[in-house]
Amino acid sequence: MIYLDWAASSVPDLYLLKKSVDIYSSYYANPSALHREGQNAQDFLNKCRKEIAEIIGCRDNEIIFTSGGTESNNIVINSVITKAGKKHKPHVIISGLEHDSVYNPAKALSELGIEVSIVNPEKSGLISAESIKNHIKENTVLVSLITVSNETGAIQPVKDISDTVMEYSKNKDRKILFHTDAVQAFGKVKFNPEELNIDAASISAHKIGGSRGIGILYIKSGCGLKPLYRGGNQEMGIRPGTENLHGIYNLSLVCRKNLSKLDNNFKKAEKLMDTIIKELSQINGTVFLPQSRLNEPEKFSPYILKVSFPPVPGEVLVRVLQDREICISTGSACSSRKKSRQRILISMGIPEKTAYSSVRISTGYETTEKDIDNFIKTLKEELPILQKASG
Amino acid sequence: MIYLDWAASSVPDLYLLKKSVDIYSSYYANPSALHREGQNAQDFLNKCRKEIAEIIGCRDNEIIFTSGGTESNNIVINSVITKAGKKHKPHVIISGLEHDSVYNPAKALSELGIEVSIVNPEKSGLISAESIKNHIKENTVLVSLITVSNETGAIQPVKDISDTVMEYSKNKDRKILFHTDAVQAFGKVKFNPEELNIDAASISAHKIGGSRGIGILYIKSGCGLKPLYRGGNQEMGIRPGTENLHGIYNLSLVCRKNLSKLDNNFKKAEKLMDTIIKELSQINGTVFLPQSRLNEPEKFSPYILKVSFPPVPGEVLVRVLQDREICISTGSACSSRKKSRQRILISMGIPEKTAYSSVRISTGYETTEKDIDNFIKTLKEELPILQKASG
Repeated sequence: MIYLDWAASSVPDLYLLKKSVDIYSSYYANPSALHREGQNAQDFLNKCRKEIAEIIGCRDNEIIFTSGGTESNNIVINSVITKAGKKHKPHVIISGLEHDSVYNPAKALSELGIEVSIVNPEKSGLISAESIKNHIKENTVLVSLITVSNETGAIQPVKDISDTVMEYSKNKDRKILFHTDAVQAFGKVKFNPEELNIDAASISAHKIGGSRGIGILYIKSGCGLKPLYRGGNQEMGIRPGTENLHGIYNLSLVCRKNLSKLDNNFKKAEKLMDTIIKELSQINGTVFLPQSRLNEPEKFSPYILKVSFPPVPGEVLVRVLQDREICISTGSACSSRKKSRQRILISMGIPEKTAYSSVRISTGYETTEKDIDNFIKTLKEELPILQKASG
Repeated sequence: MIYLDWAASSVPDLYLLKKSVDIYSSYYANPSALHREGQNAQDFLNKCRKEIAEIIGCRDNEIIFTSGGTESNNIVINSVITKAGKKHKPHVIISGLEHDSVYNPAKALSELGIEVSIVNPEKSGLISAESIKNHIKENTVLVSLITVSNETGAIQPVKDISDTVMEYSKNKDRKILFHTDAVQAFGKVKFNPEELNIDAASISAHKIGGSRGIGILYIKSGCGLKPLYRGGNQEMGIRPGTENLHGIYNLSLVCRKNLSKLDNNFKKAEKLMDTIIKELSQINGTVFLPQSRLNEPEKFSPYILKVSFPPVPGEVLVRVLQDREICISTGSACSSRKKSRQRILISMGIPEKTAYSSVRISTGYETTEKDIDNFIKTLKEELPILQKASG
């Protein structure tokens, strides 16, 4: 089986998963317990946090463990609610590229009467600093922009935009919080919160070979957030609940593994993506989404490609390739069953028909040249038949 | 090391943890993905849900997987917010016995202007149906009552109270939702949602030998709840985020294990608790919390005992026993570092001094008679010294 849906969920590193479960036999006590076993668990938790902070390049107290990307995104977006007073009407900016776990909570904010601006990308799939700047207002409190689009792989100019946002709020009473959903970036492309000049970032373990149910909210010191929900005082009060210690340990292990191999993996992914793009370019009627990717490959993650073969419906192609033991997707798994699943492509100005025919191909560190060769070969066999049948 | 803090977190079943991690190599695809690997993962998820529903005695679609007890409780309590309109001011009833993950979100509701009544228990540590009934009003939308107190082990008369609540709302337009935090009940004492006549229940895996970071919100069909946060359509839209499949599988395994051995484990725990109570009764100055436990042992979980040895501070006893390789606790780990940690005992009318001297002893299915004998022996050696030193 050839798995080319790493952006939905990665092939787990089973060795690291087992290793992390093993330590749970030594650290099963509740880290909040006052006895020694509890203290040992707390010490181990602190060690994992320190390890991850070092890898990310931030302070220990800037790492909040959550259940994953969706929860991390929601903590940030929902924190705006507590900023809403009777006098003060906050304003939020998100991009049209955001994942459902940013887009839907932002929609929920607007139902509560909070003003939300959705800034659409250029045709290139990139958000411009200019367009964000044009939407900033006196009452803007939050800007949220995905680092790497989970649909197209476009690497957003996060630093340009965060600089613009920071510059705007420099001399104001109220700071604008800049958040990025880094789920498709962290562990795959270069990502340093300080260099990117961001306040908050969401990270998920299962996108980089780690456990399900564990993620990080990076939040810069001094940018205090309110919790999404309440309970004990865990995670500095931002995220209550008994800590998922084996998940957290697993996250520290996969962080270490991915970050140490980041450059090598990236180069390998680039090479594979070059092959894919070169081969697909030769197929009649292939539309790259966006088409500009061909001229500016450096602006895209080499792990994700969105491409359309009109008039073949994306879903049909996914199912036909599945019968040939190849897994690709139509796009975000989280919205795979939604009617609105082409929302992001449409925000880029892509015609509905082209979007309808699109598929996402996403690789990972285990993907081989042979996988890609077989995928291309199979696609070339199936596409003419499907194109004929569809159109 | 003798571990008597099972109520904070249980000793994990490492065999089942490893077994659940193993299946992740077969079902790593995103269950929302449309390709076959995704479908296989979805099928496996459905199978686990069905298995757990069978064990609990409910329908598949009544099981929502969450990150644990804290999140399950918060989903229920926060759902009241969406019921608040300009005309309609909802009213919520919780007991004074609730864990911080019910108590604190309820406090947050009251900060939002939602009316919250906190009903205190009798001196027996039990909430009476009468006292709940006296607090029900026209605008009551939710009653939340813990099944087994995590502080005293008192098994609340959940059925009496839910019957009272259901009776009240029978002929009304608006149904009152009855929720119970069953984290210390499920897998340990008899617990059947239908028999108990409840609408919603919170369950946690790590309290019964399972993985951290996974739990259940049982929600009866037709009692539709709003999600606490937004994203994809997972878990019937109530709890978004890529499903923690190995955690869910682990939950199904520990459910099966605990429920099949429930009666045997219960009898064993009863026997151990009888020994503990008998032995502690012979120590001068022992105060059982509540004292009525001696006359009505059947109203308490045999897994949890709260006891006080004034004037020895609970924290001192915990630390002294830790140096003798015995883990007990002062009470809920989640509130171990809070000043308010005696809130629950004080709600029972227990003097602050007695509460200050209290400790919690909680056993699990691995606790042996020898553990208890050693604990008693050590306690009898240390207590006189501490009592003398304390005053």
